[in-house]
Amino acid sequence: MQGAIEAAVAKLEPGEHTIAAAGRTDAGVHARGQVAHVDLARDWDAFWLGEALNHHLRPDPVAILDVARVPQDFHARFSAIARHYEYRIVPRRAPLTVEAGLAWQVRHALDLGAMREGAAHLIGHHDFTTFRSSICQAASPVKTLDRLDVSAAEGTITLDVRARSFLHNQVRSFVGTLERVGAGSWPPDRVRTALEARNRAACGTVAPPHGLYLMRVVYPEPVFASDA
Amino acid sequence: MQGAIEAAVAKLEPGEHTIAAAGRTDAGVHARGQVAHVDLARDWDAFWLGEALNHHLRPDPVAILDVARVPQDFHARFSAIARHYEYRIVPRRAPLTVEAGLAWQVRHALDLGAMREGAAHLIGHHDFTTFRSSICQAASPVKTLDRLDVSAAEGTITLDVRARSFLHNQVRSFVGTLERVGAGSWPPDRVRTALEARNRAACGTVAPPHGLYLMRVVYPEPVFASDA
Repeated sequence: MQGAIEAAVAKLEPGEHTIAAAGRTDAGVHARGQVAHVDLARDWDAFWLGEALNHHLRPDPVAILDVARVPQDFHARFSAIARHYEYRIVPRRAPLTVEAGLAWQVRHALDLGAMREGAAHLIGHHDFTTFRSSICQAASPVKTLDRLDVSAAEGTITLDVRARSFLHNQVRSFVGTLERVGAGSWPPDRVRTALEARNRAACGTVAPPHGLYLMRVVYPEPVFASDA
Repeated sequence: MQGAIEAAVAKLEPGEHTIAAAGRTDAGVHARGQVAHVDLARDWDAFWLGEALNHHLRPDPVAILDVARVPQDFHARFSAIARHYEYRIVPRRAPLTVEAGLAWQVRHALDLGAMREGAAHLIGHHDFTTFRSSICQAASPVKTLDRLDVSAAEGTITLDVRARSFLHNQVRSFVGTLERVGAGSWPPDRVRTALEARNRAACGTVAPPHGLYLMRVVYPEPVFASDA
């Protein structure tokens, strides 16, 4: 996605352009509410810059939803004060049709109550080493998890996960672990044991990327007209 | 979809099989909660019949979610007492990415309040000739619309439409008409005028099939274990 947008920018202003995005969206992750900034030489009108970028992004499945001019000291990643992710699981035996590529299919039932009990152990300020990819470059494994809600509607289980910032693969590591709890393979208490182990080996599986959605990035002040 | 399932059934019991489905799902419409029945010679275990059908349906994007044995007098279409459809609209200029093929994109804002005001004229027992395809084979154009709710979440407008039964293209005709109201091209009152005209020419456009979902079919008694 980053490469596609940088190539579209280069069509408008020749040369190399690096965009800085607020949240990681690894291959397969859906960037619904991603925010990125880029420095440009020309004084573009925000609306027409979005139109021009979307024109050059076709036919890639990437679209610019909104564009805004920001102060020189704004940084899409470092200025952000919260990220909201969602993770979607469809527990059913039959192959996915409408949701194919848009959710993680598990072929057994999941116990929502147990998943919520497990999730409660993760809320708050913790050393999340257990739920951190070995290639994570964050300075510290200590983060504050503000929310990890588990809900179900129309056959889809949605995990709503919110924090100021996340470690690499942290959400997918949470989900893979809570799936084990929902399936009954892990008692909910084992999530606390895993957290306290501060050991990557204590994590459940890492859930696949295609169930993950970056929904929203929050800044101290509204960035887009649509945020206001 | 019907053809794919009939071909899968024929792999299990040679010969011609015609399945009878509860609701129309024309090409492009998503059959999330479709129900169909079929007569079989062998005494299949319901669970294994579903597994075998899904095996033969691959790689078509069609899946059997549940299978149940029904009384001889059960008819998927004629025994149904309610159908719930949803229609999804994404109003935005930027091309669709995650929702591509799963919603109708309109490239302008829609006024939800106006759409709700227009929808209110359609609720109840009416002659819906205006909202009926010219190829509709129903005996009468008179139907009772139980619900037509308009809601919005995460950039998607969802219309929840419920009735005992529908005319051909009725939901898509409602949606195309209410889109004109939401866009400001039609005052909400014009929906009543269109309804009272009992004339197909008074209808707005017919919304495209790929925003439409058959969500649920209701029977007097639960059919599947998962309904109970």
